[in-house]
Amino acid sequence: MKRFPLKVKRILKRFKMKTLILISHPKLADSATQEFLKTAGKSQANVDFEYIDDLYKGTKIDVIQQQRQLTKYSRIIFQFPMYWYSSPASLKQYMDDVFTRKFVVADHLLRNKELGIVVTLGDAEAEFQAGGGEHFTISELLRPFEAFANKAGMTYLKPFVVNQFGYLEEDQKELLLVNYLQYVSAVMPLNLDNREKWLVDRLTKMKQEKSEADQQKLNLIIGSIEAQQDQIDDLKVNIKMIRDQEE
Amino acid sequence: MKRFPLKVKRILKRFKMKTLILISHPKLADSATQEFLKTAGKSQANVDFEYIDDLYKGTKIDVIQQQRQLTKYSRIIFQFPMYWYSSPASLKQYMDDVFTRKFVVADHLLRNKELGIVVTLGDAEAEFQAGGGEHFTISELLRPFEAFANKAGMTYLKPFVVNQFGYLEEDQKELLLVNYLQYVSAVMPLNLDNREKWLVDRLTKMKQEKSEADQQKLNLIIGSIEAQQDQIDDLKVNIKMIRDQEE
Repeated sequence: MKRFPLKVKRILKRFKMKTLILISHPKLADSATQEFLKTAGKSQANVDFEYIDDLYKGTKIDVIQQQRQLTKYSRIIFQFPMYWYSSPASLKQYMDDVFTRKFVVADHLLRNKELGIVVTLGDAEAEFQAGGGEHFTISELLRPFEAFANKAGMTYLKPFVVNQFGYLEEDQKELLLVNYLQYVSAVMPLNLDNREKWLVDRLTKMKQEKSEADQQKLNLIIGSIEAQQDQIDDLKVNIKMIRDQEE
Repeated sequence: MKRFPLKVKRILKRFKMKTLILISHPKLADSATQEFLKTAGKSQANVDFEYIDDLYKGTKIDVIQQQRQLTKYSRIIFQFPMYWYSSPASLKQYMDDVFTRKFVVADHLLRNKELGIVVTLGDAEAEFQAGGGEHFTISELLRPFEAFANKAGMTYLKPFVVNQFGYLEEDQKELLLVNYLQYVSAVMPLNLDNREKWLVDRLTKMKQEKSEADQQKLNLIIGSIEAQQDQIDDLKVNIKMIRDQEE
């Protein structure tokens, strides 16, 4: 990027993939789940956090400043524990205050951004279906957020559901960690291709801070992932050829 | 009721049909719709109002007092303008604060009550469907309230939708008024029987405050409604007999 003047660099930086996670949680300090996700997310460049409940402590919220901040990100994530089948009131207050009709509908300032939802459940996810104790699916209960994304011209991402975090084993937590980091910072949709690109990208960045011996090991790992990806690509081409012949 | 001692009368009174309308509206004073509904509702005995936004001005909300109040009513109505496909934040704050897990789930203190929703729309109701500009139906968007009613063991009433009040003609407003009053105070479901019983009840009460000449006129009206009802009942019996013979 050295060949660009500073101004162009600034413009390019604005359009880079960046994620803002808006956290709504009235009892954040008591939440092991949020602590876990926060620690995970903090390790990512290009991922910023905003604590909505803090914004409402004391002075009035600065709507213009919040709107300006939102425009800088390509992915916006609402992260909250499910309270009475919706977000806690603080996220709704933020939406009512910051998402003015002018900002969202007239000026279209959220258009083409992605809207993700990270929702943590105290009850078992299996109950959220027809015939289950909660009757409705998570998708149905989150319709108001989906309708908002539609209205704003945003791409609504598949909600990321954290199911009874307290009951997870250590290896399940590790898997959750990787999935969460990909949800907040990988290119969507989260198919095998995009997950692998994300992994290679992270490993490449990690390499820079390591000793030469470790760098060589990481090179081997990256090489083997990329070789696997090449094989998968070859197989896909073969399958496509067979399918085309069948038709 | 004269033959019951005072204590029994008090207990009986508690179980009489009574409605509490919880209004969530951050700009209540500017709303012609809410002003209209408020004036209408105030005319009804057994219907009380609570303005949630007022509860949050100044001091902290008294959760115990609110919970005690709620137990006195057989029908609870959430009344609000739709803000981003849900209620304004103040109703959600009230739910998060007052509807504690102990109150709702452990002690079941809302069980067997009715939960009604009166929602006012700025956009045309026709857009709220598959293929319409808003994609989802009102029923779908209000799922979180329905899920709450299920959890609390309440009977969820068909939501009462007020569609673009500002565009209504005078006669449409009169019809809205009667439908609204029945929604808040008639026995459910709102079939012809219950609507007529409600009307006769209202006319009978009205009679007490009128001159003798007016009372006679009202008696004629009430008599003719009741005669019609008798005819309808006879017809229903006949239809049932015919159907039974067919089987």
